[in-house]
Amino acid sequence: MEELKKRILQDGLIIDNRILKIDSFLNHQIDAALIMDMGREFARRFNDIHIDRIVTIETSGIAVALATAVAMGGIPLVFARKKKSLLLKDDMYTAEIYSYTKEEAYTAVISRHYLPAGEQILIIDDFLASGAAAAGLVQMVEDAGSTVAGIGIVVEKSFQPGRRALAGKGYRVEALARIKAFEDNRPVFAE
Amino acid sequence: MEELKKRILQDGLIIDNRILKIDSFLNHQIDAALIMDMGREFARRFNDIHIDRIVTIETSGIAVALATAVAMGGIPLVFARKKKSLLLKDDMYTAEIYSYTKEEAYTAVISRHYLPAGEQILIIDDFLASGAAAAGLVQMVEDAGSTVAGIGIVVEKSFQPGRRALAGKGYRVEALARIKAFEDNRPVFAE
Repeated sequence: MEELKKRILQDGLIIDNRILKIDSFLNHQIDAALIMDMGREFARRFNDIHIDRIVTIETSGIAVALATAVAMGGIPLVFARKKKSLLLKDDMYTAEIYSYTKEEAYTAVISRHYLPAGEQILIIDDFLASGAAAAGLVQMVEDAGSTVAGIGIVVEKSFQPGRRALAGKGYRVEALARIKAFEDNRPVFAE
Repeated sequence: MEELKKRILQDGLIIDNRILKIDSFLNHQIDAALIMDMGREFARRFNDIHIDRIVTIETSGIAVALATAVAMGGIPLVFARKKKSLLLKDDMYTAEIYSYTKEEAYTAVISRHYLPAGEQILIIDDFLASGAAAAGLVQMVEDAGSTVAGIGIVVEKSFQPGRRALAGKGYRVEALARIKAFEDNRPVFAE
């Protein structure tokens, strides 16, 4: 998605050739028009398959997931909540996720009420790096007896293991921007 | 907003005549069509004033704030982040907020980069009860040298002090559903 790459080059802040902050349009301030365009782009890329529901995770996945749900005609979406600690309840699917950025683990939870069995699910998230968050969402969808039809990512760091691990297990991953390296704190895109 | 009231009656879970959970369309699962309608309703109610920017707070304010930003023609929005603890930085506005629901305090932060001076701001949030979160957002907007042009709330618990406190200070509050009481764990609407 050319407009996204342009905005990453223009506004992205890269720290230690490792962390990309895009607080100016995605993770703190939100550019409503660009986010709605992202939703339309995901709808276009996945228009060959049927999607029943979108699953994302708080916080920064919510806006893009909503844009995608709208572009797909108003399908339901559910966002996993992040909990530091948890009284485990029978009515929730859970996944343990380690955040390499924050260097801490958390538990992602989705109520069983909002993740029925037998659906085709599109997972949406803002970043794909280690793949830990996406893998946690995949696990919850499959625990629910539904199928991961695809994984839509805004920014993929292709040099980290997430994409390869998910693709290696047969999941279809579509990323709107793929970064193959950071050089001198500038992103180098994969295509 | 009649559709919202209908959905609260149909899907809302009320606990101890005190807490309203609307996880089926706002706080966990999101009904994309209904949320976009809420955005259009806020745009209609505030169409007599100029708005430069929307300010909300993670997590559940984000979807409605995005819908409103889209309905207002794609104006910028920024969401405050909630921090448990914090190294105070010069480049952030902060507010201490006590959550009566969670019975804990947190610090809300917004980067100065995304809250410029001299703007007309619409604050959007999902619930108004004690008014603590809205008051914190108001304080940050005014610390930034901008003006609170209005406060848009999805569900107001009119029997708690938030609405009266904000209106008493002259702020314009528009709530899409106003609950004046819970009786036998059912909501009674104000109009």
